[in-house]
Parts: sequence; C-alpha cells; structure tokens
Amino acid sequence: MRETLLVKSIDLGKAYRLLYPKTVVIATVITEDGKPNAITLAWCMPLSAQPPLVSISIAPSRYSYQLLKQVPEFVINVPTTELLQTMWICGTVSGRTTDKLSLAKVTLEPSKRVRPPRIQGCAAYLECRVVNELETGDHVLFVGEVVHAEVDERLFDSKSARYNTKFYKPILQIGGPLFTTTSQELLRPR
Amino acid sequence: MRETLLVKSIDLGKAYRLLYPKTVVIATVITEDGKPNAITLAWCMPLSAQPPLVSISIAPSRYSYQLLKQVPEFVINVPTTELLQTMWICGTVSGRTTDKLSLAKVTLEPSKRVRPPRIQGCAAYLECRVVNELETGDHVLFVGEVVHAEVDERLFDSKSARYNTKFYKPILQIGGPLFTTTSQELLRPR
Repeated sequence: MRETLLVKSIDLGKAYRLLYPKTVVIATVITEDGKPNAITLAWCMPLSAQPPLVSISIAPSRYSYQLLKQVPEFVINVPTTELLQTMWICGTVSGRTTDKLSLAKVTLEPSKRVRPPRIQGCAAYLECRVVNELETGDHVLFVGEVVHAEVDERLFDSKSARYNTKFYKPILQIGGPLFTTTSQELLRPR
Repeated sequence: MRETLLVKSIDLGKAYRLLYPKTVVIATVITEDGKPNAITLAWCMPLSAQPPLVSISIAPSRYSYQLLKQVPEFVINVPTTELLQTMWICGTVSGRTTDKLSLAKVTLEPSKRVRPPRIQGCAAYLECRVVNELETGDHVLFVGEVVHAEVDERLFDSKSARYNTKFYKPILQIGGPLFTTTSQELLRPR
C-alpha cells in the first residue's frame, strides 16, 4: 500500500478533477419549435434503479440549459471512441450561434418516447423526462426519469446488464482535451 | 459509424447500467461518538467547480446513510486497483453488524478539516460537508461542499489538474463483481 507522504493539497476549484476520468455522454435536447441541439457532458450519473432516474448537470449559461427549460425532455446518447470528434465538437461549440450538428457530422434519428432525437451510431440511449432539478453552485442538476432505453446488443449483455468491455470503448475524459478509454483488463475481487 | 439496427430495448430498472463503467470511490463517515465506517459507491460525481460541490448517492437502507444523517460530513477516498479487495469488502459487508474496516484491512488516518477519517493509500481525498440533499427514488443524493482536497502528486499534475493515466489506475465498475481500469491510450480530438 502506498504511503500518503506525497499527498498534497490542491486548489478547491479543481477538486472535481480528482473524480476524473469520467465517461462522457452527449445529451440531445430540442427547442419548442422542433430544432434539436446536442451537448457533451461528463457530469452524468444514475440516481435510482426503481424508479429509473438519472441526472445530468448543466451550467445555466449553456444554450442546452435554455432548451431544457423550454422542453423538459432529453436523450442521453452514450458515444464510443468512434465518435470522439463528434463528441468534442458538441462539447466546445455553441448551438446558439453555430449549426454544430452539421459541423459535428451528427446524423439524427427519431427517439421512441421523447421529442428530442437521438444520435445515430451510439452504444446506448436513455430517453428521459425531467422530473426535478436542483441548483448546485455553478451548475443545475436535472433529474430525468428514464422512459425508454436501448442499447447495442453487440456491446451489452442484457442478462447480466453489463457492457462487454472487450468490445465497448467508452470515451473517458481525463481533463480538457485529453481522453482515454477502458482497459481490456478484467478485475475480480476474491 | 455503426448502424443502429442492432439496438434493442432494455428493462428500465437496469437502465442505469448503460452509464457504466463507473469509477468507484469509498466514502468514510463517522458516528456521533466517533466510530468510523466506510462505504463503496459508484454513484458519485461533481456538481460545481465554484463553489466546489460534489455528490454521493446512498440508499436509505445503508448504515452509512444513517451515520451521515447524524454527522453530515464525509470523505471521498479515491482508491486505485491496489485497493480492489478493500473496495469490495467496503461495498458488500455492512458496518452495522460487522467490523468491516478490520475485515477490509483498512488503515485510517485523520482528515484535515472534517471528523470522518480517511483511508491510507488512496490516490485522492475530498473532505466534504453536507450542504443539501435530494430524495431521488431509491437513493438520496447528498451534496457535499469540498472543504479540503489532497492528491498523490505522483499520480496527478496539479498545473493541468489531470491524472497521469500512465500511473493512475482507478477502479471502474462494469457491473456487480466485475471491474476494469483505464487504458494507457491517449485520445485527442483534432
């Protein structure tokens, strides 16, 4: 076991980075008159199995925040490393001023139970309706009830409800423009 | 880009698994009379950079939930693969009935600004005070303000606020008793 002699204090404004790498997802949202937008997020996590609740956290300055307030529905699109460039553009360009979906070469297709469309070629989709929100400092946490979910069955075993990490390559953000994915290693506690 | 023909619907109660693998952390908490406990959690994420807020999500049935209601302070201990066995025991045995810290071979040391101690040998520590909580289905989300943070400087570059994934090996839960870690691969969008 490592000694902790080399541990040092860090700036609290960067403390969140100690919880990285984080899997990135792309949330799709829509305007009242049907114009879609997409935003890349690393702050996304489950909140409840039953009822099925998940959360995404968005800064109020973002265009997608504004759309979510208009139409309280979103899709969590789970990209793989094949969509690295798309993920990056959706996270760094604003849909308020730019047609980022074209720029990011996103192909949309209809969702099953919510208005925002989904992004073709992702590993999984969680279609959500906002049921609650919580202001937390510089972000707002949106609680979404999952009303429909789909996954690429080549990547996920439905029986054990687990990805096959031999094939599934999520995008994990290390920080800023640096990303990695999972190892092939399987670790099993005794 | 993959076609989505092979995408299939899944049971909504398992939808949260589509957001896995998730990095696991071990939260330490303490009773009013100073007895510590530890709980392994995969549902943990940042909520705000400034002020520094993070969240952990715990089911009300857990002993650590009860302790957190008594003493609203916790430490997020970020383990590496070296602590695989400790992590597993802290996540599967209840401190209500068992001396799980001994069983898990945990060595505790004092924290700097909160009462719950921290676990020696972890990569990072986020010392938190509960500032809010939100009931979300079968779990409760605790919002913690980070009042002190430390990291092993051999694993983390303070200037860029990024782990060096060549050395840092987080434990990522795939689901149930299966875990993996990050790849050595560095991915950079153009």
